Amino acid sequence: MQNIAAQVSSQDNLYKQVAARISQLIDVGTLRPGERVPSVRKFSRQQNVSIATVLQAYRLLESRGVVEARPQSGYYVRLRHWTPPAEPAIYKPRPAATKISVGDLVRQVIKATRDPSMIRLGATLPSPDLFPTLQLNRTMAAVGRRNPVLANSYDPAPGNPALRQQIARRSVEGGCWLSPDDVIITCGCTEALHLSLRAVAKPGDTIAIESPTFFGILQMVESLGMKACEIPTYPREGICLDELKKRLRSCRIKACVFTLNFSNPLGSCMPDEKKERLVELLADHNVPLIEDDLYGCLSFSPNRPRTAKSFDKNGMVLLCDSFTKTLAPGYRVGWCAPGKFKAKVEYLKIVTTSANATLPQMAIADFLANGSFDHHVRRIRKFYEEQVQVMTNAVSRYFPAGTKATRPAGGMVLWVELPRHICALELYRRALQERITIAPGPMFSCAGKFENFIRLSCANPWSEKIENGLVRLGQLMSEL
Amino acid sequence: MQNIAAQVSSQDNLYKQVAARISQLIDVGTLRPGERVPSVRKFSRQQNVSIATVLQAYRLLESRGVVEARPQSGYYVRLRHWTPPAEPAIYKPRPAATKISVGDLVRQVIKATRDPSMIRLGATLPSPDLFPTLQLNRTMAAVGRRNPVLANSYDPAPGNPALRQQIARRSVEGGCWLSPDDVIITCGCTEALHLSLRAVAKPGDTIAIESPTFFGILQMVESLGMKACEIPTYPREGICLDELKKRLRSCRIKACVFTLNFSNPLGSCMPDEKKERLVELLADHNVPLIEDDLYGCLSFSPNRPRTAKSFDKNGMVLLCDSFTKTLAPGYRVGWCAPGKFKAKVEYLKIVTTSANATLPQMAIADFLANGSFDHHVRRIRKFYEEQVQVMTNAVSRYFPAGTKATRPAGGMVLWVELPRHICALELYRRALQERITIAPGPMFSCAGKFENFIRLSCANPWSEKIENGLVRLGQLMSEL
Repeated sequence: MQNIAAQVSSQDNLYKQVAARISQLIDVGTLRPGERVPSVRKFSRQQNVSIATVLQAYRLLESRGVVEARPQSGYYVRLRHWTPPAEPAIYKPRPAATKISVGDLVRQVIKATRDPSMIRLGATLPSPDLFPTLQLNRTMAAVGRRNPVLANSYDPAPGNPALRQQIARRSVEGGCWLSPDDVIITCGCTEALHLSLRAVAKPGDTIAIESPTFFGILQMVESLGMKACEIPTYPREGICLDELKKRLRSCRIKACVFTLNFSNPLGSCMPDEKKERLVELLADHNVPLIEDDLYGCLSFSPNRPRTAKSFDKNGMVLLCDSFTKTLAPGYRVGWCAPGKFKAKVEYLKIVTTSANATLPQMAIADFLANGSFDHHVRRIRKFYEEQVQVMTNAVSRYFPAGTKATRPAGGMVLWVELPRHICALELYRRALQERITIAPGPMFSCAGKFENFIRLSCANPWSEKIENGLVRLGQLMSEL
Repeated sequence: MQNIAAQVSSQDNLYKQVAARISQLIDVGTLRPGERVPSVRKFSRQQNVSIATVLQAYRLLESRGVVEARPQSGYYVRLRHWTPPAEPAIYKPRPAATKISVGDLVRQVIKATRDPSMIRLGATLPSPDLFPTLQLNRTMAAVGRRNPVLANSYDPAPGNPALRQQIARRSVEGGCWLSPDDVIITCGCTEALHLSLRAVAKPGDTIAIESPTFFGILQMVESLGMKACEIPTYPREGICLDELKKRLRSCRIKACVFTLNFSNPLGSCMPDEKKERLVELLADHNVPLIEDDLYGCLSFSPNRPRTAKSFDKNGMVLLCDSFTKTLAPGYRVGWCAPGKFKAKVEYLKIVTTSANATLPQMAIADFLANGSFDHHVRRIRKFYEEQVQVMTNAVSRYFPAGTKATRPAGGMVLWVELPRHICALELYRRALQERITIAPGPMFSCAGKFENFIRLSCANPWSEKIENGLVRLGQLMSEL
């Protein structure tokens, strides 16, 4: 075998290369199911890499279900080399505008999620440990020292010019050519979506959403007195355009709120050419598209997918995004590029929250300008990819036969379809008693559908605690 | 004369004591109108204070209109010792719910206000120079170093526990006994008011407001599709309870938004016993009171007035406040104590902006806990009091005869009634051409009333530039 250490430049990725080499040996049949893989010590000597690296590689393979450890004996190729679970099918909700009634359930679930003693399998709040928090806090302190008065000055909408410039520059990666004047800084993506909705629709109006969709969007639509029309959504390619076309005719849709890149909870990613058709279709009907791109840059492939905004010729797409999932959960810095609705969104920002905190904006602008962000994003993309893989494997190992799961190409969630007889709400309640929290499927639809679905979050680093939680969850399912 | 320097402990206030001594000499007739006051040099020797201090004292007296400088000759007692302008009377708006239409005007005025090359006489954004910004930024940096991960963690509504505890502790000064659990942190007072309004009323509902009232409240009511009912308001004692009583019967009022302590723009402060009657009256009608207490702690007397919340027995008062005018314009930290509407406000906070930035909350909590805040508030109360005095004097000197002005006992604004024939909007436009911005009266009512009123802001430190602006404004009035 050729020496791996000689080929790999980055020490950081060495263990993954080692793992990949072992996988290859299994794939080509050199190592067969049930056989012992080379001992850690031997492989380390052979490949001229440290024992720690080989150990890390074997653990990665173990978490992926490729090998298993046997006490006092070493690592073995698993007998049944795992295949990922089947994927769920598209769900077809009732084709009508619906009042939303998920408020109470969502409140309960979120409340439970906040208890740090819980095994949290549902919440998508990434741990700040993933982020360059120290560096970011240092940046904030330095910016405050350099510009003390500015840092405490009121910075009214549209927000910090340097940050808006950085956001405009980075929009190119999603295929856009925004100018800083196109951008309004908001309190996270939540406020961006909220202001956008208020800018394009009124209470009583009907909003098209994905099915399933993020419960935060459901709550927002509900809280504004609007109705929702759920559009069937493919687990891989996003909403069904034909169905959307029908609903545009039958439901008097006033606006759409779609997460086209790595939607939550499906993880679907609409192909770019389909995005283009979507933007054209909506433009033909004069219906604005509020595009939630919160997960767009968390693609597992090296290049992120385009935004629908990049196909927008008429200013009808309101692009919403934030740094919450990629850099700074605690800074609450998001933004909106509202196209032709800019004046309205800016006005609503002024009367809703007036301005964002100044210093966090300056700190993120500085961080983006000095290039640290790109390096960091590459790192967390890898991280989430591995997490999703490990989680999928756990689903296939610990959950009952017949369980299905999505295969997202980005983001941080898995949407899991349980065998029909398992009620996700009952599972949620039983799990809660054992201090495990999940996000039950009915949170993600207007009227409590997806009764046998749950969303699993891959946001928190894989650990024994999480694995134990999943094992127990699988047992609870079997008991139901 | 007794030596002043011996009596005064704080060097900082020495010049004010010197000025007070001279005023006294004038009041008792020792120095008479037209007489020369002691030369700077002589008085400095007599009182054993520095020349700089005496000079500062004489300038203060000059700005108050007590003495005047004559070139090459010194300072003289002014011939007509100034009396403050008369006060405006109460205004009686139409007793009906009204759609609001100030949006465009407000947008224009705010936009002009942002240009730093303007002489800004209208905007109430205090300069960060007034605030312990360096100390606060240092606190933020230190907090970030001590708790790096926490500082970048998502801190969902109701917000930072340490900050809520400090706010609860301080509520005692306004007569309240809040617990940390009563408080929800918001993005400034703006979001506190906005969420409160949404919690207690729906689009189409009628909201009682003061007349005149802060344009931000008008915009908010307008943006939420609600109507306003303007309640006549006394320039000193706040809204007229008898009129409110009538409107409660005739207008189906759903909620009230009142600034009872140092309202903007009137500067009125409702006596505490009247507040109690107000709270009882509204409770009898089951109408919630949203209390905007943004200026409550900017009282010119040593003790701040009570909040209406302190008389609230039924959880019907939603108290809103922030640190924007007292400590940190750039931090965007406000709060709401929504009484029995807490769950609703918290839910709306979650779906509107989810959370505040974490680190600014931690920094302010730290700053409040170490006691620096009280010292600082005493200082800025004094500052605003002097500013209001100097501005009142300038109105009486530079504006046409017949001009009236309020006499606020706190806050930072003057509400000025110009002679009937002067159109505030025309004055605004002409002033703008000369790069002076003011806040014209029609911004402060539903339907463009207060045509001959303007609001002057005393937020920015008195300067020659501001004085020149006021002189020119007076000339423009004479030309109209």
